[in-house]
Amino acid sequence: MGADGTGDVRVGDLDETALLARVVPLMPTEALLGPGDDAALVAAPDGRVVATTDVLVEFRDFRRDWSSGADVGWKAVAQNVADVAAMGGRCTGLLIGLSVPTDLEVAWVEDFARGVAAACACFGAVVVGGDLSAASEVVVSVTALGDLQGRPPVLRSGARPGDVVAVAGVLGRSGAGLEVLQRNGSAAPREEELVTVHRRPQPPVAAGPAAALAGATALMDVSDGLLRDAGRIAAASAVTVELTTTGALGEWSRALGPERGLEHVLTGGEDHALLGCFPPEAVLPTPFAPVGRVGVAGPHPVLVDGRPWTGSTGWDHFAR
Amino acid sequence: MGADGTGDVRVGDLDETALLARVVPLMPTEALLGPGDDAALVAAPDGRVVATTDVLVEFRDFRRDWSSGADVGWKAVAQNVADVAAMGGRCTGLLIGLSVPTDLEVAWVEDFARGVAAACACFGAVVVGGDLSAASEVVVSVTALGDLQGRPPVLRSGARPGDVVAVAGVLGRSGAGLEVLQRNGSAAPREEELVTVHRRPQPPVAAGPAAALAGATALMDVSDGLLRDAGRIAAASAVTVELTTTGALGEWSRALGPERGLEHVLTGGEDHALLGCFPPEAVLPTPFAPVGRVGVAGPHPVLVDGRPWTGSTGWDHFAR
Repeated sequence: MGADGTGDVRVGDLDETALLARVVPLMPTEALLGPGDDAALVAAPDGRVVATTDVLVEFRDFRRDWSSGADVGWKAVAQNVADVAAMGGRCTGLLIGLSVPTDLEVAWVEDFARGVAAACACFGAVVVGGDLSAASEVVVSVTALGDLQGRPPVLRSGARPGDVVAVAGVLGRSGAGLEVLQRNGSAAPREEELVTVHRRPQPPVAAGPAAALAGATALMDVSDGLLRDAGRIAAASAVTVELTTTGALGEWSRALGPERGLEHVLTGGEDHALLGCFPPEAVLPTPFAPVGRVGVAGPHPVLVDGRPWTGSTGWDHFAR
Repeated sequence: MGADGTGDVRVGDLDETALLARVVPLMPTEALLGPGDDAALVAAPDGRVVATTDVLVEFRDFRRDWSSGADVGWKAVAQNVADVAAMGGRCTGLLIGLSVPTDLEVAWVEDFARGVAAACACFGAVVVGGDLSAASEVVVSVTALGDLQGRPPVLRSGARPGDVVAVAGVLGRSGAGLEVLQRNGSAAPREEELVTVHRRPQPPVAAGPAAALAGATALMDVSDGLLRDAGRIAAASAVTVELTTTGALGEWSRALGPERGLEHVLTGGEDHALLGCFPPEAVLPTPFAPVGRVGVAGPHPVLVDGRPWTGSTGWDHFAR
């Protein structure tokens, strides 16, 4: 292979400076002060900054034979900007910690950076800092910073009985796409689309600030499945989230098939849709679709068509 | 062992919620909005926020048989607050991503959190958010946020010929302490002190804002060794950093012994001292000690007593 790295150059063939010189220019890095000094400096116009962090670990959160470097970079950005949107904010900067095996191809790291860049372009984000180190498996840790434009953050704890429950985005497709990959066979065209959603989720980031402006009383990113995440709003707000499958939830279920569709919609993770609660008189901003109502606290945090759901309830990082 | 976890409970025995419930309360978590929602909210009083991230990887950056969980937690905080100080700022919040093997003792994670808490108390920091996941080795990713109190950031690029070069903190001890551990034998009492510095570095964080107030033209955290980091100031400022071993550098070298002392002082990493450049008329703030002068750019970025150093020049994450 050539010294220009077009061949199978490995991470361990380069020193850190040389690797950074190849990767950093691939990403958008605008800020008051971007990468290169001890720290970055990011604008925080209203005197506060939203901050959230998520870690993606190879074999647990992704597999390199199922997702390209660009897919992993995209997803790491997407799930963090979704968390900023879920406070009602817009992302102002990302810090990306990337740990990789020394025998990983440099091309994978470059591909990762291109996926980060593509997601940044899609979601209106920039990379302001990061760290690169060696590890025995790929670990991606992203911190996203955000701006609330002077508004209060929209928490999980503000839902009130009578509120409308609504979702921006489509649920169940990422989990269904993961199932296609796990089946390890060829995928029908419709299934390819689900796999793409799994690899490159598209959180509706503009819906976060829009929900805040529309008076949302509670808002969160659906990353661990609707039932589990709705349960978190129910717990934080001391209410019951009463979902109905007659509207959008049913429509999404039917699109995923009669056998597992509803289970995917209710328990599939990583779609990074936004789950919001709105006062009954609020006009739901695009693309929020109503999926239920908030009720008073009861024996079950979440009901589906009036009954507790008895199946599995989402992903746990440690459960055996 | 009992359900209270006093025995050898493993991470995989608990779900994520249960593990977080044991770990989060051990750490100081004050903020406008701390952990528990999709993101935290941190004050940024002057409308800007300093942000930096560092990743620590087991086997590369620490070993669990050489450092306790508390040591690792301490060090992860210390090196990030040092980066904020190196911009002239004070830390306003930390986000901590922790990935651990499922067979790791929960007690290790609790010990880690106590080390984070001890460092927070020492350096005046708080934890505002984080993420916990499973991995095959321990990976700690910390993002630190900071406040410049209205001042411009102190960059690496502002050093000017004629400036005084000064260091706050003591150099060489962490590297010497690491060497004691690598020797794998018993340590003399003086050596135990060096090992403690290696395990729990004490960046002089108050010296960062003090340097900014004193008019520092350049400032950085010495994490990769004095020569290497001084070379970064030299490159960014287009100057030569001319170190002299007659003062503090010589004193620190002698304390570490005649054979390897100077090498440790010049090339040892992870002391997290602050390296600053000050106009000749500036009064050096405590505890900065002069270690040289800034000269015009020349063939070597850094000189030691007028000559280029010919030994090793510090740590690289990927070099073979």
